[in-house]
Amino acid sequence: MPRYALKIEYDGAPFAGWQRQKEHPSVQQAVETAISRLQKAPVTIAAAGRTDAGVHALAQVAHADMERDWEPFRLSEALNYHLKPHPVAIVAVARTPEDWHARFSATERRYLFRLLNRRAPAALLAGKVWQVAHRLDPEPMREAARHLVGRHDFTTFRASECQADSPVRTLDQLDIETVDTAMGREFHFHVRARAFLHNQVRSFVGTLERVGAGSWSPEDVRHALEARDRAACGPVCPPHGLYLAGVVYPDDPFDAPPTA
Amino acid sequence: MPRYALKIEYDGAPFAGWQRQKEHPSVQQAVETAISRLQKAPVTIAAAGRTDAGVHALAQVAHADMERDWEPFRLSEALNYHLKPHPVAIVAVARTPEDWHARFSATERRYLFRLLNRRAPAALLAGKVWQVAHRLDPEPMREAARHLVGRHDFTTFRASECQADSPVRTLDQLDIETVDTAMGREFHFHVRARAFLHNQVRSFVGTLERVGAGSWSPEDVRHALEARDRAACGPVCPPHGLYLAGVVYPDDPFDAPPTA
Repeated sequence: MPRYALKIEYDGAPFAGWQRQKEHPSVQQAVETAISRLQKAPVTIAAAGRTDAGVHALAQVAHADMERDWEPFRLSEALNYHLKPHPVAIVAVARTPEDWHARFSATERRYLFRLLNRRAPAALLAGKVWQVAHRLDPEPMREAARHLVGRHDFTTFRASECQADSPVRTLDQLDIETVDTAMGREFHFHVRARAFLHNQVRSFVGTLERVGAGSWSPEDVRHALEARDRAACGPVCPPHGLYLAGVVYPDDPFDAPPTA
Repeated sequence: MPRYALKIEYDGAPFAGWQRQKEHPSVQQAVETAISRLQKAPVTIAAAGRTDAGVHALAQVAHADMERDWEPFRLSEALNYHLKPHPVAIVAVARTPEDWHARFSATERRYLFRLLNRRAPAALLAGKVWQVAHRLDPEPMREAARHLVGRHDFTTFRASECQADSPVRTLDQLDIETVDTAMGREFHFHVRARAFLHNQVRSFVGTLERVGAGSWSPEDVRHALEARDRAACGPVCPPHGLYLAGVVYPDDPFDAPPTA
């Protein structure tokens, strides 16, 4: 069966996360249901990042095995038609080799976290940013972030229910960009790693927020990391500022020239 | 009674527009209801721009006469508390002279229109942009826009139900900026005038979209303007890409140093 990579944008708000669940709507279910309108054979799709409830994606990547050949553009059009009215859009489709795997072929995940630092609640960005009312100082946050970059045991920064075999990961980037807009100052956390632990990004951001507020020092973050103890983590921040921003593959199927 | 200027951000989606109506929720009603939680005397607030159903605001300005003196920051905090859960936020409050009027003292209104030009439907920006699937060429749109700038009889570009005494207005700016983002190319229409006619910006954008698509020439827009005939207008575009972006006052109350 021909395999296709799907690049998917979604608003996580109405979903219990990426992964199919019996009782709650999921992004996976929405996409699989759209595929089921195109063919008889049931399809199970695999995604690069299993985002939690409320987490958004700019560019989730999944793959699907189809019953027949599709011109990639026609497949994206057909899926977008059947995805309505869900806030889920197929932004690109590419044919892949049959042994290509959206999850296991990925060599890097990129996340963006948007924090709106202003006093007034978010009206236009409600559900798209974490609004923090007290003033945050980016410099100590950046200093603290530097302690987290590199290869570490991240036990402190993973959920107690995390299923990963090992708490050791290599964090390649944790940059904090300040972006001044018509709606106020945002902090954009740009985070990159080959793989992440459950709740790792939200544990980072929630802890770094404490540093920006002055409650924690950058050194406190280093001590928390070294403690290798979930209890040493700062508060986990809410999911609605988090975006799966991209997935990297050695041979990116979306970079290939279209064949049709 | 002391008068206060309120700078208001809102998501227009759940409202039938700014103006209070008997049967439908309005932004005016949401703000007046929040004020009614703070004092006994009923208040009617006046706004600089009476936005239509679905139109957003980054910085609407209204004024309210309060029963008693308020420290401006405390008033904004109290109003934001009582505005929940509406997607309406008071982003600034300033004390004004009692003859200052949010509508009549204003010397300029600024609008932003966001058009997302990509094939896939908007998922994360649903309700915040007008998504146009076919490719638009900005250069002829800009050439057409230049015909509209200046003092003209804008009969072609105002709604038939427009209440203004005269169709003559001076359009000070109609710039089209292209903005490339992780979600695709946006066109930002920046529009400035002392005052606008009903549906004027949406009539402009809907007509200019036809030029970008190649269905109309820039000269066709000049002829449509000169026709002074509503029937000569292109299609009026949807409201959900439109933002009241700012209101200009000779003595901007929000620029004054805080007194408290």
